[in-house]
Amino acid sequence: MAVTIGAKAPDFMVNTTRGPISMSEYKGKWVILFSHPADFTPVCTTEFMEFAKRYENFKDLNVELIGLSVDSLQSHIEWLKDIKEKFDVEIPYPVIADINKEVAREYNLIDEKAGNTVRGVFIIDPDQKVRWMIYYPAETGRNIDEILRSLKALQVNWNNKLATPVNWKPGEKGIVPPPSTLEDAYKRINEGNKAWYLKYQGT
Amino acid sequence: MAVTIGAKAPDFMVNTTRGPISMSEYKGKWVILFSHPADFTPVCTTEFMEFAKRYENFKDLNVELIGLSVDSLQSHIEWLKDIKEKFDVEIPYPVIADINKEVAREYNLIDEKAGNTVRGVFIIDPDQKVRWMIYYPAETGRNIDEILRSLKALQVNWNNKLATPVNWKPGEKGIVPPPSTLEDAYKRINEGNKAWYLKYQGT
Amino acid sequence: MAVTIGAKAPDFMVNTTRGPISMSEYKGKWVILFSHPADFTPVCTTEFMEFAKRYENFKDLNVELIGLSVDSLQSHIEWLKDIKEKFDVEIPYPVIADINKEVAREYNLIDEKAGNTVRGVFIIDPDQKVRWMIYYPAETGRNIDEILRSLKALQVNWNNKLATPVNWKPGEKGIVPPPSTLEDAYKRINEGNKAWYLKYQGT
Amino acid sequence: MAVTIGAKAPDFMVNTTRGPISMSEYKGKWVILFSHPADFTPVCTTEFMEFAKRYENFKDLNVELIGLSVDSLQSHIEWLKDIKEKFDVEIPYPVIADINKEVAREYNLIDEKAGNTVRGVFIIDPDQKVRWMIYYPAETGRNIDEILRSLKALQVNWNNKLATPVNWKPGEKGIVPPPSTLEDAYKRINEGNKAWYLKYQGT
Amino acid sequence: MAVTIGAKAPDFMVNTTRGPISMSEYKGKWVILFSHPADFTPVCTTEFMEFAKRYENFKDLNVELIGLSVDSLQSHIEWLKDIKEKFDVEIPYPVIADINKEVAREYNLIDEKAGNTVRGVFIIDPDQKVRWMIYYPAETGRNIDEILRSLKALQVNWNNKLATPVNWKPGEKGIVPPPSTLEDAYKRINEGNKAWYLKYQGT
Amino acid sequence: MAVTIGAKAPDFMVNTTRGPISMSEYKGKWVILFSHPADFTPVCTTEFMEFAKRYENFKDLNVELIGLSVDSLQSHIEWLKDIKEKFDVEIPYPVIADINKEVAREYNLIDEKAGNTVRGVFIIDPDQKVRWMIYYPAETGRNIDEILRSLKALQVNWNNKLATPVNWKPGEKGIVPPPSTLEDAYKRINEGNKAWYLKYQGT
Amino acid sequence: MAVTIGAKAPDFMVNTTRGPISMSEYKGKWVILFSHPADFTPVCTTEFMEFAKRYENFKDLNVELIGLSVDSLQSHIEWLKDIKEKFDVEIPYPVIADINKEVAREYNLIDEKAGNTVRGVFIIDPDQKVRWMIYYPAETGRNIDEILRSLKALQVNWNNKLATPVNWKPGEKGIVPPPSTLEDAYKRINEGNKAWYLKYQGT
Amino acid sequence: MAVTIGAKAPDFMVNTTRGPISMSEYKGKWVILFSHPADFTPVCTTEFMEFAKRYENFKDLNVELIGLSVDSLQSHIEWLKDIKEKFDVEIPYPVIADINKEVAREYNLIDEKAGNTVRGVFIIDPDQKVRWMIYYPAETGRNIDEILRSLKALQVNWNNKLATPVNWKPGEKGIVPPPSTLEDAYKRINEGNKAWYLKYQGT
Amino acid sequence: MAVTIGAKAPDFMVNTTRGPISMSEYKGKWVILFSHPADFTPVCTTEFMEFAKRYENFKDLNVELIGLSVDSLQSHIEWLKDIKEKFDVEIPYPVIADINKEVAREYNLIDEKAGNTVRGVFIIDPDQKVRWMIYYPAETGRNIDEILRSLKALQVNWNNKLATPVNWKPGEKGIVPPPSTLEDAYKRINEGNKAWYLKYQGT
Amino acid sequence: MAVTIGAKAPDFMVNTTRGPISMSEYKGKWVILFSHPADFTPVCTTEFMEFAKRYENFKDLNVELIGLSVDSLQSHIEWLKDIKEKFDVEIPYPVIADINKEVAREYNLIDEKAGNTVRGVFIIDPDQKVRWMIYYPAETGRNIDEILRSLKALQVNWNNKLATPVNWKPGEKGIVPPPSTLEDAYKRINEGNKAWYLKYQGT
Repeated sequence: MAVTIGAKAPDFMVNTTRGPISMSEYKGKWVILFSHPADFTPVCTTEFMEFAKRYENFKDLNVELIGLSVDSLQSHIEWLKDIKEKFDVEIPYPVIADINKEVAREYNLIDEKAGNTVRGVFIIDPDQKVRWMIYYPAETGRNIDEILRSLKALQVNWNNKLATPVNWKPGEKGIVPPPSTLEDAYKRINEGNKAWYLKYQGT
Repeated sequence: MAVTIGAKAPDFMVNTTRGPISMSEYKGKWVILFSHPADFTPVCTTEFMEFAKRYENFKDLNVELIGLSVDSLQSHIEWLKDIKEKFDVEIPYPVIADINKEVAREYNLIDEKAGNTVRGVFIIDPDQKVRWMIYYPAETGRNIDEILRSLKALQVNWNNKLATPVNWKPGEKGIVPPPSTLEDAYKRINEGNKAWYLKYQGT
Repeated sequence: MAVTIGAKAPDFMVNTTRGPISMSEYKGKWVILFSHPADFTPVCTTEFMEFAKRYENFKDLNVELIGLSVDSLQSHIEWLKDIKEKFDVEIPYPVIADINKEVAREYNLIDEKAGNTVRGVFIIDPDQKVRWMIYYPAETGRNIDEILRSLKALQVNWNNKLATPVNWKPGEKGIVPPPSTLEDAYKRINEGNKAWYLKYQGT
Repeated sequence: MAVTIGAKAPDFMVNTTRGPISMSEYKGKWVILFSHPADFTPVCTTEFMEFAKRYENFKDLNVELIGLSVDSLQSHIEWLKDIKEKFDVEIPYPVIADINKEVAREYNLIDEKAGNTVRGVFIIDPDQKVRWMIYYPAETGRNIDEILRSLKALQVNWNNKLATPVNWKPGEKGIVPPPSTLEDAYKRINEGNKAWYLKYQGT
Repeated sequence: MAVTIGAKAPDFMVNTTRGPISMSEYKGKWVILFSHPADFTPVCTTEFMEFAKRYENFKDLNVELIGLSVDSLQSHIEWLKDIKEKFDVEIPYPVIADINKEVAREYNLIDEKAGNTVRGVFIIDPDQKVRWMIYYPAETGRNIDEILRSLKALQVNWNNKLATPVNWKPGEKGIVPPPSTLEDAYKRINEGNKAWYLKYQGT
Repeated sequence: MAVTIGAKAPDFMVNTTRGPISMSEYKGKWVILFSHPADFTPVCTTEFMEFAKRYENFKDLNVELIGLSVDSLQSHIEWLKDIKEKFDVEIPYPVIADINKEVAREYNLIDEKAGNTVRGVFIIDPDQKVRWMIYYPAETGRNIDEILRSLKALQVNWNNKLATPVNWKPGEKGIVPPPSTLEDAYKRINEGNKAWYLKYQGT
Repeated sequence: MAVTIGAKAPDFMVNTTRGPISMSEYKGKWVILFSHPADFTPVCTTEFMEFAKRYENFKDLNVELIGLSVDSLQSHIEWLKDIKEKFDVEIPYPVIADINKEVAREYNLIDEKAGNTVRGVFIIDPDQKVRWMIYYPAETGRNIDEILRSLKALQVNWNNKLATPVNWKPGEKGIVPPPSTLEDAYKRINEGNKAWYLKYQGT
Repeated sequence: MAVTIGAKAPDFMVNTTRGPISMSEYKGKWVILFSHPADFTPVCTTEFMEFAKRYENFKDLNVELIGLSVDSLQSHIEWLKDIKEKFDVEIPYPVIADINKEVAREYNLIDEKAGNTVRGVFIIDPDQKVRWMIYYPAETGRNIDEILRSLKALQVNWNNKLATPVNWKPGEKGIVPPPSTLEDAYKRINEGNKAWYLKYQGT
Repeated sequence: MAVTIGAKAPDFMVNTTRGPISMSEYKGKWVILFSHPADFTPVCTTEFMEFAKRYENFKDLNVELIGLSVDSLQSHIEWLKDIKEKFDVEIPYPVIADINKEVAREYNLIDEKAGNTVRGVFIIDPDQKVRWMIYYPAETGRNIDEILRSLKALQVNWNNKLATPVNWKPGEKGIVPPPSTLEDAYKRINEGNKAWYLKYQGT
Repeated sequence: MAVTIGAKAPDFMVNTTRGPISMSEYKGKWVILFSHPADFTPVCTTEFMEFAKRYENFKDLNVELIGLSVDSLQSHIEWLKDIKEKFDVEIPYPVIADINKEVAREYNLIDEKAGNTVRGVFIIDPDQKVRWMIYYPAETGRNIDEILRSLKALQVNWNNKLATPVNWKPGEKGIVPPPSTLEDAYKRINEGNKAWYLKYQGT
């Protein structure tokens, strides 16, 4: 079964470049789990460095980053060391050595033909529910800005029970949930809403 | 089984607000299939209007848009009519009335608790392979800019066999695929690359 | 298994245009549950308005009305609002948004080809037993007079242990149940009945 | 599986009080198949006599009547003879002796507790599709007027592709099917319809 | 499984022309259960009248008679009434209305082709064991004399532990059971028996 | 499955005291197959001698007799020899040595507790259908007169399509089958029959 | 599963010509169980008479004899009586009437083609273990001398833990069991044995 | 399944001390197959030497001897060599090295506890049917005289269709098979036989 | 399932040339279990003598030797005795007589074609885990020096938590395990290691 | 199933550091396939360099070397490059990137706990049969000398049908296979061999 939005994030206990971790120890925090196809590949290298650069932004939003591929710990260490040497970027987050592919299978990340993982990202809320997920192919780098935008939209909903409209950006108005009875719909109409089902925050 | 990246896009034959369509009749074009939770809901309304506004951009990229929810044709018609009346936006693309939930199940879109669909987007290439997919929750509107950016990155790969780095934007350089033998790696090193596995287009 | 006469009315917990309801909360009352194929369709509209007009008649007979289709709550709200605007009829009873089709399946209402429901009516007695049921096709409107006549016949049986003959109308005589032993049959014959098995109330 | 509206009427080959018949030999005619709980019972007797009286009306509408219960042929013969003797009514239609309960099971008519049949009526069209069905309990006589009204409504739909509104009576106007695309809905609006989804014949 | 000699008589709870009965309430009495194919048939009528005439003989032997067919109670009542009117014979024993065919199946009485019962007779002893059973076809009336002869032979065995020879008639000598060891066989030979295995009562 | 009236008599190929036989070689003749519990037992001895005495009567009616028990051929030979020596009766019919119990099982004759057979009789018609069957216990001898009476009744039905009433004896009148349509019933009534369903031959 | 040497002798409770017996009641004695194909057959008759003549020899060795075939008790009695009359030999041991073939199946004695038993002999020790078994065909009589010789050899082993060489006869020397370690083998060699693995009692 | 008398001797292809053999190549000859528990054990050694001494007797009767144990070929060779050295006896027949235990399993020879074979002997006729079989325990040597006696009895039956009585010895009279019909039994009686079922050759 | 490195050594209880042993009784010692194809074969003989010569070396390392083949105990005894006689070498370790092939199967040693065992060696540590295993074919003798070298390498790891490089010989330096976090890898680099993943003991 | 000696070497088609290869393309050559736990680990590094140094020796013996681990191609490339940089050793043989673990599973190399492979070596002959296999743990480096010695022993057997004794070294005498019949064993004895089962080449 593929993981789905709203479901419990599958737990795991794995080795990383910063020692063993489990998903459950992150309870109470937002988590961004992201996978890459393989160490020593070009797009992954650019993504890893970008996540490293934005690391403090995520920290400020109470978010922990976790990388993952099916490479071994030794391979991860050598790669991170090589990135540091070649590009002078230090990777501050743990990278899972999912050598048994257990996490990859739980999160539906295996590319059955290649045997490695696609580019997935999962945003997991403080209750450890999966709230957002994307799957990009090996040849297409992800957009850290969109990941940050989505994260903030999810936090708006988490904190204020508001939804966010298309292309919403932090600072813009949220949307109030639609009425669930005929009576409530008439209230909106009577308040002068253009459409009873669309009402922005503070209108 | 959940749909996966690289797999054949499941075919269908369904009713839409513009008459019956099938996936297979789109062969040779790029397709963006997107689902919304329900008619007459606020976030969906903003998204539908935005897709309508960008309709010509997508057309220019040889892309067809298809909307989908599990509402009936009658409900779709009334809603589109209401959007036109209230917001003066005409919806130029077909909207699937997936009353039997067959398409929703094939594309893993069902929210089992609510019985309707989550916010999915699928980019399908001219060979009808699924190349990109995202799942957002009901409370979070999608970002049309990111969909466009990803589409263009996929087209870069389709046309030029190049990958795109993190945060790539149209016009920026792509990435050349990494070497697949020791011999080829040494060639890169001998050509003076900083890291044998990362080489930008034209460098 | 199809629901059958005499069986327990399947329970449910669902959303309606008047908030969530369950079948079991109606215990002690007569219930008329009726389904329609889809919102914003013509025959359904005439039926909904007619049920609204007769609402007080049913109330006087201790009957609760419940409508049902597989449309969403949002679609129901818009439709009822539209009926009010266009025909000036307010719908006073709850309409179930059976988006998961659970109630529709329990009551054998699914039109497998169209994916929506046929026109069913179920009369459920105060002990929550199904006592009467009809299935009309989408193209044929129901007859509220016949539903009322049948309801009253069922109430005559419920209150007085009498049966009702063909074409019986309220106010006409009921029929006494037939004898169940040879001895009782002879009693009737001896009392001068024309046929030992047919005896009207008060004869 | 219970018989459903739109499905093929289950075929049978059975003995009746007028010799053996099969369903398939009625192809090209409308058929009304109706069941009763048992011979020598009061409500059934009134219904049988009423169907006999209306026999010519049904004939004029190209309808064949067929009665059915799980009693034996001998019992049927004695009962019809007794009706003739006691009430001077001759039964002009065949009555099935469904001693093996095969027809009763196919048409979902068995009252599992009593072992006999409930009061079902099935209207079957000239293509032998089930178009209309009702199930009344043993204590409630059916309404021949409503059966005739429904039959005529079905014939209106069969002949003119029109639907009939609630409480429709022969001679009243039918309803035109609703539009199935957004474009067609706008046409109706532009023609001045009050609601785009409700349009009477000839308006 | 067919009922067999020596097995427990299957119990039942059924409606009869003299009210509901169960097999188990006859414990301590001999029971003769007999089935007929259908009410209003000729051979059955002659048999029913004959059992009625011998009713007192059976009573004197502590035997209860029970008739059975798969006709309804109403049919049974009308038939018994008709026998009384036409032939002036009153039926003093209950007749089971085995409308569900449950008893018929337990006693292996169903004629699968016709759907009704063959002509079975079962003699059941005071311990409710089946002791004797016959199956005659529809076209052959049974012989009440043979039933009485067999019953008396069974009672001789029940009371005196004697067997009865071929064609035995009440008043004739019974047979002593054969020896079960070589030693006992020699005793008989020594007593002058013609054959060690055949010895009449009192010889 | 127990053998039933109207079913094909199970075939067999077995050893007898007169060499091997099969059921199928009797096609075109009436057959009476009868079983006994064991050789050298008293009731069986009286029955075997009686069948021998009536042997010519059966022959005259085109009937073949076949005895059966699960004893061995050697035991049968010794027993028949002993009957001849002790009682001066020769057994003119074959006796099956059903040592494998195959025939006994096919004809439902096994007494599961004792391991041998009960006293069954089967009348098989020239088409090899089972027409009549009885099962008596070990302690009760059969009545050859009743077997002959039943056989003659079956032959009356076979030759003249007549049924025989209760207690019928050869030479007495048969019964004409009852009418199978309402129309035919009325003919009988019009001919002055006391009851439409009972009519003796030649009346 | 066939019975094997060393296994527990299957228990039974059966009828014999000397009343019912069970295997378990022989515990503490040696038992010789032997089967024959059928009563009244020639080889069996010679064997039965020989076992009778040697009966006292077996008794002296603490052995009980038990005969067995699938014939009935009545057949056994007649046969033993006939042997006495014709050959003046009395059979002093019980003969099992294994009419249900239960013992025959447990001891693998059934000749599937003939349905009766082959000529088996089983020697069972005082612990009720099977120690010796032979199967001869119907046409070959057994050798009572060899049975006695084997029995005595088994008793030598039972009493003295000695084995017996080929063709051993009572009174001849037994064989000491071979050594089970290298060390013990060398001891024998050192004691001057010709072969370390063969050493007669007392050498 | 255990091998049984009358069944086809299981075929095999195995290595022996005289090269590979198969059972089927012995067709047309009598075969005596005998197993021993293990090489270098005392009772086996005495048996092997005795079979060697009688080898010519068996040859004269058209019999081939085959020895068998689950030891390896190397072990067999060493043992036979050691027998020759220590006891000056040459083993002239092949000994099977049934290292895979396939033959041992087919002939039911495995002692499950010890893992080796019991002392079995099988006489197989020229049609390769098993005619005679014995199983002795490890501690009891077989009797070559009895094996020879049995073999000759089987050959008497094979050549002359005669059976042999108990304790029969070559040169003594055989027994004529018993009659299989009553008629044949009477013939014997009329010829003056003491018992109809026992008749010696030439009497 | 084949035994694997790191798994618990399968336990057994078997007979050997030095009496019965079990694997579990060796807990706390190192064990070398080695199998040979068959007794009285040439390569095995050379190996057995070599293990005997090195017996004291293994003892000094706290190692117990155990030989194994599927030959019987008698065969083993004769072979060891023959080795002593012919080559004057005494075998000081127990040799398992795995006649049931149970140990051979547990340790994956069966050559399915030949039915005997291949040349396996298993080194089992004091916790009874399998640490090292080799499988050589029948035609290739093993190298006792390599077995000793490997054993000592395993003991170095067991005692000092050091690994041993390729071709390591006792007395040479071991290897320190590689770092398991990025941080530890940097420590090594900072200490001046040539490669962060390779560091010899004491460097 | 674990791979076994004598079985066909499982085929594969995989990526290596020198492009894709399959096992079957090596037919006609000897192959040594060896696995290591992970790239960038110390013992593996020493082994890889040693195999590189002996590469020409293997070539001279018509042997192809193939390395394997479950690391990715990118990781392999980086490691081999690092070995070259740090230790100035070039790896001349292909290294399989068994990212799907398919080869590892076929050759039973998975360490289930760690998810990577143990240190296996397989010698595969020119007919692609597995002839020799060893499994060492992660902490113990292999011995290239023993691999070479074993390879040469296998080639001696392949070329000359000779076996090799314990500790055999190239240039030493081989062993002639043992005799397979008693007759051949005597031939050896007569030729004066010390033991009939051990004979060196040229003696």
